[in-house]
Amino acid sequence: MDNAIKKMDRPIPLGVVKRLPVYYRFLTGLMKKEIERISSQELADKLGVTASQIRQDLNHFGSFGRRGYGYRVKELQEVIAYILGINQRKNMVLVGAGNLGKAIANYSSFREKGFFIKAVFDNDPAKIGTVLANCKIKSIDFLEEFLCSNNIDIGILAIPVENSTIIAKMFEENGVKGIWSFAPINIKSRRNIVVENVHISESLMTLSYKIQSE
Amino acid sequence: MDNAIKKMDRPIPLGVVKRLPVYYRFLTGLMKKEIERISSQELADKLGVTASQIRQDLNHFGSFGRRGYGYRVKELQEVIAYILGINQRKNMVLVGAGNLGKAIANYSSFREKGFFIKAVFDNDPAKIGTVLANCKIKSIDFLEEFLCSNNIDIGILAIPVENSTIIAKMFEENGVKGIWSFAPINIKSRRNIVVENVHISESLMTLSYKIQSE
Repeated sequence: MDNAIKKMDRPIPLGVVKRLPVYYRFLTGLMKKEIERISSQELADKLGVTASQIRQDLNHFGSFGRRGYGYRVKELQEVIAYILGINQRKNMVLVGAGNLGKAIANYSSFREKGFFIKAVFDNDPAKIGTVLANCKIKSIDFLEEFLCSNNIDIGILAIPVENSTIIAKMFEENGVKGIWSFAPINIKSRRNIVVENVHISESLMTLSYKIQSE
Repeated sequence: MDNAIKKMDRPIPLGVVKRLPVYYRFLTGLMKKEIERISSQELADKLGVTASQIRQDLNHFGSFGRRGYGYRVKELQEVIAYILGINQRKNMVLVGAGNLGKAIANYSSFREKGFFIKAVFDNDPAKIGTVLANCKIKSIDFLEEFLCSNNIDIGILAIPVENSTIIAKMFEENGVKGIWSFAPINIKSRRNIVVENVHISESLMTLSYKIQSE
């Protein structure tokens, strides 16, 4: 697989990176329908972008598809999975076992893609000791110790704003590589750690705008 | 307020629309800190875009900010709120009272922005009759009737993939203006209805990519 992918000697534009999961999801859907090949034009039509955009995006990673034939669905899906690190085991911890934390923990498709929740932490005595995502929920007091003695790739923040900065710092200082934050503030990426903030309400506002401008 | 905003005689690029909630959130934060004005450069630095991008984005809506003075935070925040339809009452129904539905329903900041959940529906007998977001959860069998007799702007889909297409169609046929979908498929916008799909897992894949490319 490594040989198939162009050495990424310059950073890939963020817009491209954001589109890759969309391509991945769509190609996985095609595979389920046993569709073996697709032209960049068909791919473009389905995804609402231009064929040229798709070719440009993929060109960052190597040479895929053949003129007049299009893309082999399975090959392209595997390449994108590889680029995104899907199916390459990632260990995660979840901090926050409220409704959102529960929703995340129960989203089984992460596990299928190689993202495993190794431990869940909360500060609510009523939750500590109960089971979520096959993990007995631990007190947040044990988070630092757990991070020190386990190799954790991703820390999930599903807690209110008050404690999120402290926990983010704890992730950073204990070797966590990335934070997936649902806290309603922006946690910033730093030298040692990358952050992906999910602001669910932004999509509601986008929808609100679209309704008004109809 | 209407006079302050340029007539939008051509569609605003989606990229601009997507950035407006980010500006809105940041400006709201400044207001809480009682900061009254900000230069486009400062705004740009904080948000990780260029000052020219910010000026171009806002220029779609009129003329804001003055050279050497910058933007009045409150004025700009109010204009963006107006454009996004924030604080202009929107009635919503929530379909799906699982963990994700609960997390959405309990997210109080929507209500503060004028987005009200008027009713919650589920098909689980154990949930029907219990209370969520001040609403007694109703059977999904009553959704169509409810949509007919109430003026609903936004339908929230927080259900598994199986039923989401049927419910989306029901929204569309009964006057709902927009769908905010958390279903793990793409629901398409149609002539009568706009759709905003939230694919939470895409942000995890983006994070996974960033970790790998560090």
